[in-house]
Amino acid sequence: MKPGSSPRTELKRLAYKSSGEQADLYSVIDDNLVAHVGVVQDGSPLVIPMTYGRSGDTLFLHGSTGSRLMRLLAAEPDICVSITELRGLKVARSTFNSGMHYRSVVIFGKARLVSDEDKLEALNALSEGLLPGRNEEARPTTKKELAATIIVAVDLSETSVKISVNEVDDPEEDLNKGYWAGIIPFRERAGEVIPADQESKELPVPPSVQRFIDSRR
Amino acid sequence: MKPGSSPRTELKRLAYKSSGEQADLYSVIDDNLVAHVGVVQDGSPLVIPMTYGRSGDTLFLHGSTGSRLMRLLAAEPDICVSITELRGLKVARSTFNSGMHYRSVVIFGKARLVSDEDKLEALNALSEGLLPGRNEEARPTTKKELAATIIVAVDLSETSVKISVNEVDDPEEDLNKGYWAGIIPFRERAGEVIPADQESKELPVPPSVQRFIDSRR
Repeated sequence: MKPGSSPRTELKRLAYKSSGEQADLYSVIDDNLVAHVGVVQDGSPLVIPMTYGRSGDTLFLHGSTGSRLMRLLAAEPDICVSITELRGLKVARSTFNSGMHYRSVVIFGKARLVSDEDKLEALNALSEGLLPGRNEEARPTTKKELAATIIVAVDLSETSVKISVNEVDDPEEDLNKGYWAGIIPFRERAGEVIPADQESKELPVPPSVQRFIDSRR
Repeated sequence: MKPGSSPRTELKRLAYKSSGEQADLYSVIDDNLVAHVGVVQDGSPLVIPMTYGRSGDTLFLHGSTGSRLMRLLAAEPDICVSITELRGLKVARSTFNSGMHYRSVVIFGKARLVSDEDKLEALNALSEGLLPGRNEEARPTTKKELAATIIVAVDLSETSVKISVNEVDDPEEDLNKGYWAGIIPFRERAGEVIPADQESKELPVPPSVQRFIDSRR
C-alpha cells in the first residue's frame, strides 16, 4: 500500500521530504535491519529495538515467549514502528541549518498475533529480512523453537516515508563570509567475517553471508 | 547516574546482556547520532527519529516551534528514548540462535521544556552531540533562530543499557553437522566529504569535520 494515507501520516511541515512511493517504503524497510517499536505500557511509552521481516504488505516482529515485550505485543496493542537509515551529516554554515541526511519509515497499526499455522512462513520472512537466503543453509527450525517464539504482524496500511537528502540550503546572507558547508556521507560497511570455531573455519563462507558482505564492502 | 535503577529498567531475561556501568551509558549515547523518541499521542504510541545532545546526566532533544511533535514534547509528557548501535550480525547454525550484535540504551523520563535562558547552552550540547567542535566554527546562532526552536530535556535517571556482543553459542547438538556459524562485524564509515559550493571548495575542510571523518575511516 502507498505511504501517506491518513491524517496521522500526512506531513504538515517540510512536505518536500515526504514520499508517496511504495517502492521507497519497501526499499527503506528491506535495506535496513532494525526497527524501533513503540507500545504504550501502563500509560507510558516504551520503545525497543527489534529485527523484523517483511512479506508483501505485512511486517513481522518476533521474540521469545519469555519476553515481557513479546507478551505485551501478543495482546495486540496499537504499535508504532520506526525504521531509520542514516545517510550522512549535512553541515551547513550555521548549526541551525545543519542536520542529518536520512531515509525513514514510520508505521502505525495494531499488532496481530500470528497463529501457529502461519508461524513458519513468518519466521522465514524474518530470517530473509536479516540475511536473505540464510534460511535454506541453516539447520532447520525445530517445533520446540517454533513453540518458544511469539510472532506478531502489522499491516503496512498506515505509513509515512521521509527522504531527507537535500543539498545544503544556507540562506543568501550566510554566503561569502568564510563559513564552510558540505555533506559527510555515511556508509555501513561489513568487516572481515569471523568464523565461530574450528568447524566453521574449515567450511566455506555460506553464499548468504558472502552476498551480504559483498553488498557492504 | 548508573543504569538499571527501577523495575522498568531491570532486565528479567538475559541479564548477562545488561550493564550497570555509567561509562557504558555515556559511551552508547555519545558514540551515536540518532535516538528514537516515543511518546503517547491520543492513547497510541508515536516513535520518531531525532538527533540529540548530552550534557552530564541530561539529554536534550530539539526541533522547530512549527513541528507537531515538538509541541507534543513541549507539553512535558512521559517519553521513552531508545538509542541503538548495530555492531554486527551473529550468524548461528540455526536462524533461531542468530541475531544482532548491538549496544543499546533505553531512557525513561518526563520531557522538560528548556527555558529561554537555558536554551543556548542546550543548543551547544545538541551541536556537540552531532559534530563536536562545530559550534565554534559555524556562523553564530541568531536570536530569531533560538526563538524558533523548542528544546526539551530528559534526565538520565531511569535508564537501561544492553550490550549484546556475545559469541555464537550454538548448542552441542548443532555442532559437527556441516553448518557454518560466525560473526559479520559492521562499521559505519564516513565517505569523501562533499563541499556544498564554490566558496566551500576553496575553504579548508573545518577541523570538526576532519576529526569526524578521521574517526570513521
